[in-house]
Amino acid sequence: MRGSFSSPLDGAPFQQTRIITRIMQPRCPHLEPLHIEGEYFPPAEIIKVLGPLVTVERKKRINATLDHRTYTMTPVMEGLYDRGNVSAVLRSGEALGYQSAHIIQTSPNFKKAKRVTQGAEKWLDMHLWESTAECIHALKAQGYKILATSLEDRPRPMAEIDFTEPSALVFGNEKDGVSPELLSLADERVAIPMLGFSQSFNISVAAALSFYHAYRDRVSRQGYHGDLTTAEREALTATYYFRSVGSPGPILLRSRIAD
Amino acid sequence: MRGSFSSPLDGAPFQQTRIITRIMQPRCPHLEPLHIEGEYFPPAEIIKVLGPLVTVERKKRINATLDHRTYTMTPVMEGLYDRGNVSAVLRSGEALGYQSAHIIQTSPNFKKAKRVTQGAEKWLDMHLWESTAECIHALKAQGYKILATSLEDRPRPMAEIDFTEPSALVFGNEKDGVSPELLSLADERVAIPMLGFSQSFNISVAAALSFYHAYRDRVSRQGYHGDLTTAEREALTATYYFRSVGSPGPILLRSRIAD
Repeated sequence: MRGSFSSPLDGAPFQQTRIITRIMQPRCPHLEPLHIEGEYFPPAEIIKVLGPLVTVERKKRINATLDHRTYTMTPVMEGLYDRGNVSAVLRSGEALGYQSAHIIQTSPNFKKAKRVTQGAEKWLDMHLWESTAECIHALKAQGYKILATSLEDRPRPMAEIDFTEPSALVFGNEKDGVSPELLSLADERVAIPMLGFSQSFNISVAAALSFYHAYRDRVSRQGYHGDLTTAEREALTATYYFRSVGSPGPILLRSRIAD
Repeated sequence: MRGSFSSPLDGAPFQQTRIITRIMQPRCPHLEPLHIEGEYFPPAEIIKVLGPLVTVERKKRINATLDHRTYTMTPVMEGLYDRGNVSAVLRSGEALGYQSAHIIQTSPNFKKAKRVTQGAEKWLDMHLWESTAECIHALKAQGYKILATSLEDRPRPMAEIDFTEPSALVFGNEKDGVSPELLSLADERVAIPMLGFSQSFNISVAAALSFYHAYRDRVSRQGYHGDLTTAEREALTATYYFRSVGSPGPILLRSRIAD
């Protein structure tokens, strides 16, 4: 929120400007109640019903993980060919606290992408997109600055970026990098440091370094990495409980009947 | 160098303690003259003879690379099974300025390791070892502190390590991590941050993150990463020239005959 103030001491009248707030789309997709066979379950109810079925050990792990979770930075992969690379990027992202990930499936060779969402990605919010424009517009509507990793046209060194601001970091495909369309939609081009003879990093290495850099940048600037709101933390707890127990849907439905 | 001094102002006699210096083995293997068919070529002569055959572009690249080169941190891989992983680690190390690398070949499945030294590794000082003890003793003789990456027994977070001190960072094999023998020889156990549900990083990702961390740590503590001595820089320039031109050996030998 911004205002224009004058000090009472200088005698000018207190004045507040009109505040124009752009309504942002929420970044966490779990805030809405969960819909199961015509019934809607809010996060608090899911936690109450499924909580007793989640082991103490798992609950500890979930809490520790949520302490370091963020939606402020989100990885985007555009047109990757290799599913192994996508999985590696998702795994690094998850391990370094990034809750969401966006996959733009523009490579014709990348048909079975839905299978990518299985595995370590179980804990992430995966967003699959069929076009670059669609993905980038959705991210902009959520307030993200679009940062394209690219070595062309004098990109800014990654060390100059403030990752405490909402940032979507885009990695292009293994052969050509990010597309011209993406570059035209991006707010900035950023480069990962390359100090040696090697002219490029493997995509999974480039992504991991960027994720680590952003994590360290955030901690050094503001003292913490994880920054979920109370509502996001509750919603993710509910989602993780749902993904941690067997047959969560039937259990939730039965709990309503039992009432 | 350490001494014990009293200020002349307090009247006490000037006193200097005996200095005990442990003689360290040099870390750069290129300082000695190059031996070719009975002739010995010091770095300065190699630069003088081969310099005119190296393109201006390549010389620029070599100089830029040497600005960011260091022997102060060196990666060690112990018993890795997968040659692709070894190559990936070497590539990340090269790209982030680490001039040397040590490979301990204790895995019986890793027979053709010599081929690993080809490729992007062309620019690195590769050291192949047949036993863990042999490698670690050599590194200790060069003044390196041995840091074993490990998740066991409460390792220190990597953020607590001062990478401006000579450090050999050891990565264990894909399945079991570093060996008990290595742990018994190590000075410290260090852990890479793991903030999510994933319990481990792929070895190539773990190594890249560590290399990036050490690079950033060095820059933030002392303002620079590259720290070659003048002699090391000259020796590496000679080595890179040697590796940049065709038939460097015959050219050097002919230059002596021509004198």
